[in-house]
Amino acid sequence: MRIAILTSGGDAPGMNATIRAVTRTCIYEGIEVFGISGGYEGLIDAKFEKLVQSSVADIIQRGGTILSTSRSERFMTEEGLEKAINSLKIFEIDALIVLGGDGSLRGAKMLRDRGINVIGIPCSIDNDLAYTDFTIGFMTAVETVTEAISHIRDTTEAHCRANIVEVMGRECGDIALYSGVSSGAESIIVPEIPLDMNEIAEKAIMGKNRGKKHHIIIMAEGCGSAFDFAKEFEKFTGIDTRVTVLGYIQRGGAPSIFDRILASELGYLAVKEAKLGNSLALGFKDGIAIKMSFEEIFKIKKVFRHDLLDILKIVSI
Amino acid sequence: MRIAILTSGGDAPGMNATIRAVTRTCIYEGIEVFGISGGYEGLIDAKFEKLVQSSVADIIQRGGTILSTSRSERFMTEEGLEKAINSLKIFEIDALIVLGGDGSLRGAKMLRDRGINVIGIPCSIDNDLAYTDFTIGFMTAVETVTEAISHIRDTTEAHCRANIVEVMGRECGDIALYSGVSSGAESIIVPEIPLDMNEIAEKAIMGKNRGKKHHIIIMAEGCGSAFDFAKEFEKFTGIDTRVTVLGYIQRGGAPSIFDRILASELGYLAVKEAKLGNSLALGFKDGIAIKMSFEEIFKIKKVFRHDLLDILKIVSI
Amino acid sequence: MRIAILTSGGDAPGMNATIRAVTRTCIYEGIEVFGISGGYEGLIDAKFEKLVQSSVADIIQRGGTILSTSRSERFMTEEGLEKAINSLKIFEIDALIVLGGDGSLRGAKMLRDRGINVIGIPCSIDNDLAYTDFTIGFMTAVETVTEAISHIRDTTEAHCRANIVEVMGRECGDIALYSGVSSGAESIIVPEIPLDMNEIAEKAIMGKNRGKKHHIIIMAEGCGSAFDFAKEFEKFTGIDTRVTVLGYIQRGGAPSIFDRILASELGYLAVKEAKLGNSLALGFKDGIAIKMSFEEIFKIKKVFRHDLLDILKIVSI
Amino acid sequence: MRIAILTSGGDAPGMNATIRAVTRTCIYEGIEVFGISGGYEGLIDAKFEKLVQSSVADIIQRGGTILSTSRSERFMTEEGLEKAINSLKIFEIDALIVLGGDGSLRGAKMLRDRGINVIGIPCSIDNDLAYTDFTIGFMTAVETVTEAISHIRDTTEAHCRANIVEVMGRECGDIALYSGVSSGAESIIVPEIPLDMNEIAEKAIMGKNRGKKHHIIIMAEGCGSAFDFAKEFEKFTGIDTRVTVLGYIQRGGAPSIFDRILASELGYLAVKEAKLGNSLALGFKDGIAIKMSFEEIFKIKKVFRHDLLDILKIVSI
Repeated sequence: MRIAILTSGGDAPGMNATIRAVTRTCIYEGIEVFGISGGYEGLIDAKFEKLVQSSVADIIQRGGTILSTSRSERFMTEEGLEKAINSLKIFEIDALIVLGGDGSLRGAKMLRDRGINVIGIPCSIDNDLAYTDFTIGFMTAVETVTEAISHIRDTTEAHCRANIVEVMGRECGDIALYSGVSSGAESIIVPEIPLDMNEIAEKAIMGKNRGKKHHIIIMAEGCGSAFDFAKEFEKFTGIDTRVTVLGYIQRGGAPSIFDRILASELGYLAVKEAKLGNSLALGFKDGIAIKMSFEEIFKIKKVFRHDLLDILKIVSI
Repeated sequence: MRIAILTSGGDAPGMNATIRAVTRTCIYEGIEVFGISGGYEGLIDAKFEKLVQSSVADIIQRGGTILSTSRSERFMTEEGLEKAINSLKIFEIDALIVLGGDGSLRGAKMLRDRGINVIGIPCSIDNDLAYTDFTIGFMTAVETVTEAISHIRDTTEAHCRANIVEVMGRECGDIALYSGVSSGAESIIVPEIPLDMNEIAEKAIMGKNRGKKHHIIIMAEGCGSAFDFAKEFEKFTGIDTRVTVLGYIQRGGAPSIFDRILASELGYLAVKEAKLGNSLALGFKDGIAIKMSFEEIFKIKKVFRHDLLDILKIVSI
Repeated sequence: MRIAILTSGGDAPGMNATIRAVTRTCIYEGIEVFGISGGYEGLIDAKFEKLVQSSVADIIQRGGTILSTSRSERFMTEEGLEKAINSLKIFEIDALIVLGGDGSLRGAKMLRDRGINVIGIPCSIDNDLAYTDFTIGFMTAVETVTEAISHIRDTTEAHCRANIVEVMGRECGDIALYSGVSSGAESIIVPEIPLDMNEIAEKAIMGKNRGKKHHIIIMAEGCGSAFDFAKEFEKFTGIDTRVTVLGYIQRGGAPSIFDRILASELGYLAVKEAKLGNSLALGFKDGIAIKMSFEEIFKIKKVFRHDLLDILKIVSI
Repeated sequence: MRIAILTSGGDAPGMNATIRAVTRTCIYEGIEVFGISGGYEGLIDAKFEKLVQSSVADIIQRGGTILSTSRSERFMTEEGLEKAINSLKIFEIDALIVLGGDGSLRGAKMLRDRGINVIGIPCSIDNDLAYTDFTIGFMTAVETVTEAISHIRDTTEAHCRANIVEVMGRECGDIALYSGVSSGAESIIVPEIPLDMNEIAEKAIMGKNRGKKHHIIIMAEGCGSAFDFAKEFEKFTGIDTRVTVLGYIQRGGAPSIFDRILASELGYLAVKEAKLGNSLALGFKDGIAIKMSFEEIFKIKKVFRHDLLDILKIVSI
């Protein structure tokens, strides 16, 4: 049997740990395993390379992806898709394992619809796949943001200021929400909840009146300009306010323990399912690894954790 | 209404984050909240201190416990227990929130049996409470061990050696198991599984023959002497072998993201339940916060994750 | 005898470690020590607070400054300066210890010129004081930048891109230079050296041709827009290029070992010199703590380490 | 021209960064460069491998040594030494660069005495070479110890205990001294200073009386049993006392900024000197890179920094 693996879309910490688990499980099971370079682009161009035990040595802790990744426009064309399928046929691949976020798993479904056996593993810092509680990489991004905010708080406190910290997440406010709780931020602004300047400003002013010397507000990238908000906030509160856009530091870094274990579990399971001839997506729900059809995963609507937001607001008073 | 909080037994990262969540939620709910110094010892001696918003400022990221902790032998006596109950009556405490591991929650049950309203929150690096998937502090300890092993691996590899790393956990092998997966250790030795020297030695020799320059074996503290095992292992394999006993570094450190969120959730929930006049233990099961009676929690038997051990063995080949 | 201490200008990691060393040395020597809140602004408004042993407990590892800091425009006026001097007289301060960068030490000199005994300690992440090899906080900022770049490299490599990383430093390229060496960046752009696009582009193209998947260029903030440069660089090289502006994360964080030791040495020495009735600036030159008059320190011209730049260029080929 | 490089003795963080600097500088200068596997053992057995640009990619931040290291007894024999020299002749090596501590540089001198051109670079966590202010790896070890102590302090404080932390350093107390200052330890015990139990106990008791909840004493490994001392200390002070032996975690880990820069400078300089046909040792003295003859370096006596010890005692009151 032959399995191929690719990483697609934005990179996420834990992709390498997943590649390692897939590769080693294949070798253990006597399955030949090939890495495809550069995501769907590399699939189209048949950039296959055989993976052996040592190909994945010492990568469990590395950010990024040793297979490289990309967003492929050619794959979205009929011609590109056909070429991709052709590559899999030439190399006699029995199953393809795709690591990526929403767009990458939609690409996986396209291949599945053409008869390819595909296993999807959710890897994305954004946590924007509704069917899984956590994507691989998300908790690491939250860790990175929390560490960055601890630096920002030092300076913010030294100057008795506020700081608006813009974080990633596309249309999903989860990075802002979780890092808000873990860093003890005073407020967050997320796409899922309408912005209430009065509530935010009141909290800041009350904190200041009680002697709080710092005020951290985390803003998800899908909520407009952090700089515009900062100006408005400063006008409302009279608090000297700065902006930090965290940018690319959120993508990289060694995966957290949580992501390493998730990656090991899902990588292992992917090979097991591929071996059975199944085509499906894997995830992590209610504390355990799950599998779900490609039809189902795109029907589920993402649920925002309002309960966690309530906790955030109360424990940061 | 008045709530008191204490930390008991071995300290665990996330105790402070829990104290913060309890205190802030109490204040938000208009409940007076008191910190008790030094665990059940302090309860016996009525060492109460009122907690305000700023008492818990800037502690979410701190290891240890600002309330101090201890193991109390006096509390195990009838006289001590009565004094403890008396302290709660003098201060007119309506509910006591206890943070700790197995022994501490047994103490909580004793108070509950005497009519005190008690909420138990599982805080322990050992993950030795069966009713909850995770205790607060456990994932941080796994993170610390994983980081330590990354250091040890550098040296082990530079000298082409093996290293036996002894970790904490009492009778529970979870620290060894999880840190084994996340650090990519070759084998683990845990109390839950009989030691199979042949299996471990064979893996080491095969790795060496394939060119692996390092070999890490994690040994839980409940499995005998790491030094004795190292000698035996060296004799079996011919690989130069050293021992590292990680010791107290495993207890401290800033709590991981996972533990901070768990702490915030359970601390918040504890106050909600206390307000309702309930007496029970909180935990985290199947991905969400749960509550359970003190009777039930001690009936459940801890289940070792054999599935994760299988994954560990395969992905570290 | 009475000593007062203030922190001024931008905060820097190690300010707290310095405050701790000053406070403890004063207490050991039987000197009363006062902290002034908010830099020269606080001095003008006589915001003095007595410091005791426990005031500085557990702060050696904290970023920011427990005394708060500011940039004071009032202090630049005759009226402000007089009020500041008056504050010192009211509190019968025998010597003032000032922690800060270039502007703050110029302020210290102004007080000295009016007859106040002042000791200056160079604290700034920018390393922009010529008379000292290192300012307290600089090496920590280099560490933070290096860590951030390790994250950025993961993503840059995963996508086979280049990334232009804008760092702080005002007119001084030292953060860019040192973090360039320690992170293994391919090129740096600093105010001290004319930008040579051909050299930078050639190196990038040659690296790409040899199979290098990432290309990191560090740009000091005083060298124009990183976004403009990125566009130009992309045009020259054809390499997909992104920009990261590190911003405020560079200021905070726990001080590095180097800065903690420097802070302890200079804080201790400051009290010794103050006790002798001296007025001067402290620094770190040729591997040891030094003292120098306020006249001299502003005459010395900063020397850029061209030798280190040469090394950077060669070891990153 | 041909240069060979080896790492010898205990591994130290920064060895890889040095190997990288040597390799890249050689390539830049048009010199062929060979890595020798396993230190002097590998030299005797002629384990040479050609190094190219990519051999040292992505290793600046890695602990350990990609060349492996060992302590060689054969090299101490006439026969071993001759074989080593023979290996160098067969491969037509013009100069050998040796990375290691005291013993390794003595080995380098032996080769030099037989007419081999040798450049020595001090790499050791112990800082036990008198002629250089710092060995590569030392500051990283201090960083690791400081981080470990921050963990230990959390627990020590939570239980109101003392903790005796045993650190490495052989006959040199520098790791204990520097990590004592940077971690804010109360006392240190080093081979250079006679142990004064009264002084240490008095400080602990005074701290306890003032309300200090933790007491950290760092003990260098050359000063007897930490367990024996702990018992004695407990008897003198009545403070509950534990012991932590840090062990192998002190050797590994990513090199600190300081060590990466030192490694880059000395690696670069080593090639420059080798090219000139010189045979000497490199070091870092008075803030800059230095060179010195093999005769001189072993004549210099190590000077303990009593000034820093005085500072440590005062700033930790």
